[in-house]
Amino acid sequence: MSSLNGMRVLDLTQYLSGPYCTMLLGDFGADVVKVEKLQGDDQRRLSPFVNDESAPFMAINRNKRSITLNLKSEQGKSILFELVQKSDVLVENFRPGIAKSLGIDYEAVRQVNPGIIYCSISGYGQTGPCRTKGGFDILAQGMTGLMDVNSPSGDRPVKIPVSFHDIGASLTALYSILCAYIHKLQGGAGQYLDISLVDSGLSLVPVEAAAYFVNGVVPKVAGTQNLLAAPYQAYKTRDGYVVVGASNQKLWEKFCKQVVDRPTWIEDTRFATVSDRVAHIDELERIIELVLTHEDTGYWVEKLDAAGIPGGPINTFDQALRDPQVIARDMIVELEHPRAGKIKNLASAAKMSGTPAQIRMPAPTVGQHTVDILSEMGLTTSEVEALKRDKVV
Amino acid sequence: MSSLNGMRVLDLTQYLSGPYCTMLLGDFGADVVKVEKLQGDDQRRLSPFVNDESAPFMAINRNKRSITLNLKSEQGKSILFELVQKSDVLVENFRPGIAKSLGIDYEAVRQVNPGIIYCSISGYGQTGPCRTKGGFDILAQGMTGLMDVNSPSGDRPVKIPVSFHDIGASLTALYSILCAYIHKLQGGAGQYLDISLVDSGLSLVPVEAAAYFVNGVVPKVAGTQNLLAAPYQAYKTRDGYVVVGASNQKLWEKFCKQVVDRPTWIEDTRFATVSDRVAHIDELERIIELVLTHEDTGYWVEKLDAAGIPGGPINTFDQALRDPQVIARDMIVELEHPRAGKIKNLASAAKMSGTPAQIRMPAPTVGQHTVDILSEMGLTTSEVEALKRDKVV
Repeated sequence: MSSLNGMRVLDLTQYLSGPYCTMLLGDFGADVVKVEKLQGDDQRRLSPFVNDESAPFMAINRNKRSITLNLKSEQGKSILFELVQKSDVLVENFRPGIAKSLGIDYEAVRQVNPGIIYCSISGYGQTGPCRTKGGFDILAQGMTGLMDVNSPSGDRPVKIPVSFHDIGASLTALYSILCAYIHKLQGGAGQYLDISLVDSGLSLVPVEAAAYFVNGVVPKVAGTQNLLAAPYQAYKTRDGYVVVGASNQKLWEKFCKQVVDRPTWIEDTRFATVSDRVAHIDELERIIELVLTHEDTGYWVEKLDAAGIPGGPINTFDQALRDPQVIARDMIVELEHPRAGKIKNLASAAKMSGTPAQIRMPAPTVGQHTVDILSEMGLTTSEVEALKRDKVV
Repeated sequence: MSSLNGMRVLDLTQYLSGPYCTMLLGDFGADVVKVEKLQGDDQRRLSPFVNDESAPFMAINRNKRSITLNLKSEQGKSILFELVQKSDVLVENFRPGIAKSLGIDYEAVRQVNPGIIYCSISGYGQTGPCRTKGGFDILAQGMTGLMDVNSPSGDRPVKIPVSFHDIGASLTALYSILCAYIHKLQGGAGQYLDISLVDSGLSLVPVEAAAYFVNGVVPKVAGTQNLLAAPYQAYKTRDGYVVVGASNQKLWEKFCKQVVDRPTWIEDTRFATVSDRVAHIDELERIIELVLTHEDTGYWVEKLDAAGIPGGPINTFDQALRDPQVIARDMIVELEHPRAGKIKNLASAAKMSGTPAQIRMPAPTVGQHTVDILSEMGLTTSEVEALKRDKVV
């Protein structure tokens, strides 16, 4: 059983921010039709490849059917509008202005289907002085201050090495679509959703913004230290690092007694309260590491676990993906792709007892379902052949 | 008009991962009742403060009513179960096992309300070898490999300096709840949602995982360079840095001709294709910076804009929050708090034409609505006084 059975999604997106959103809709049971230009989504050209199929593409396009359509041709557009009539949701991530120039913007689409939920995803949004600019994840990281926050002072800047703003916009689009769909299921009208990487990027840091609004302090990367809590960071051990989250008073006292066996620290006025510990954070780090560097990370994680204090290792990415906890949570799934063979995907993080996310099919090849979808629309084989000959599909 | 009008949410969470999720439900019109222990959510003790009210707390608890309840007392628990009967959704982020020991786990709650959508948020999830461990954002960053990916080789580790895994789990909980609610609106049953910081943290990096599954390469921080695309990074200018996203062939050629006025680079065999440019990424960086360091960032952003190439600055966080684009998008709102006075919040990133997110009230003070909520349940003034005297509320 799936929660979004019956939802029909027309997906005009490429790269990451749109396809990840529509994949999650598909995971929950929506029928997602991915409309690709004849050459296919540009993400298909990103390496690494398996038998010429892009692994990045296959990671974020499962549970979709693909139809190719030349949206610059009148026939292509009329096929699109036929699909629009039967859709609940349309998602696009063209640069603002392009959908209008193609004649497939919200105003045009709602003429054909007034109930449509039309979601645009863009770098900066459809309004404001930057509205016409193209924007990728790295530009949003620059714009929102996130890249600066992650960069050491005076040195070359350091991007967060994953595409958080693309993914953040995906998730913002996803929950907005779901809310709009709930409105529609209860008798409400369709609507337009204007989602941007910059807006959603900022919305991911509400606490940092709140602190800045009050004290004017611009956050800055500080290794693993947290300037509001201690001990709450990674400490050096004999063979690496261990992460310790023992900032509240009860956990701090347990840490002193049961983990490092230094009960006198509890009475030390430098470390009496969490504010005191933050005020002496470097000294605290120094004396904790004097103890922790005598044993390996594994030893300290066991000690922390036994004391009920949050503690753990710093996994490399490969260690993370084979961590027994990650395996036990079934976070890695294997799919059979018609060309690439067995490929691995991350599973859905939405662990739902009643309507679990389901992986019904691997990512499609370019236009894999063009004939099926056109047949469903009532076209004959020879009509489909003519469209192919005319480079409409 | 709001999309979640009529949804009733019982919020037993504290800190960040739960409250941010339930705040977004409130933004969309749900009636969110925040149940706090008598001392209040621990997040209320995080600085900075405005008239003793925590700014971090106020950032993620608007649009909620607060009732205090001692869940260790039988009377407190029976009030909770009365609230459960009228709720659609319950969200909790206790350490796994605590809800059961309090007698308010899913099995207990569904006896009273079989239709409830019960969402648990935890560090590692309710299953697997780490299920009993407490987990904060920093521990999930360690576990998922994200912290290692962001750390320079051989140096002390560097945490992503914002709480991405808390927020990621919030958003995963949010979309799971919305899907479960859609299922319920269509006649389906209630269900249990088991959301973890580690699962959702991994789900934020699908492309990195896909690449690793194929080539076994562990991603590592690389300044702002991208090992799949170039030019797609920040380059040094006379007064700082400029971010350039010109990796596809059309944009690269425009960049050479219209931005840096070096048309001969297009013919240079080292830079002929995107793979060539990535193979010579350091050399490309060097020659681009030889040009860009002659002018300021603002000059180059204008040039890039004129050529239609994605380009922009690296804002500091304070610059980001006063950027004309951010202002034009109404991303900062001012609320009137009864004790803190005028405070600023980030607005919702869900820009919806039909059912926009609405900020109806500021974050509550501890137990601000205890009397109101108990009165709605039919309790008299003297009964409420007795509960206060007995430290139940």
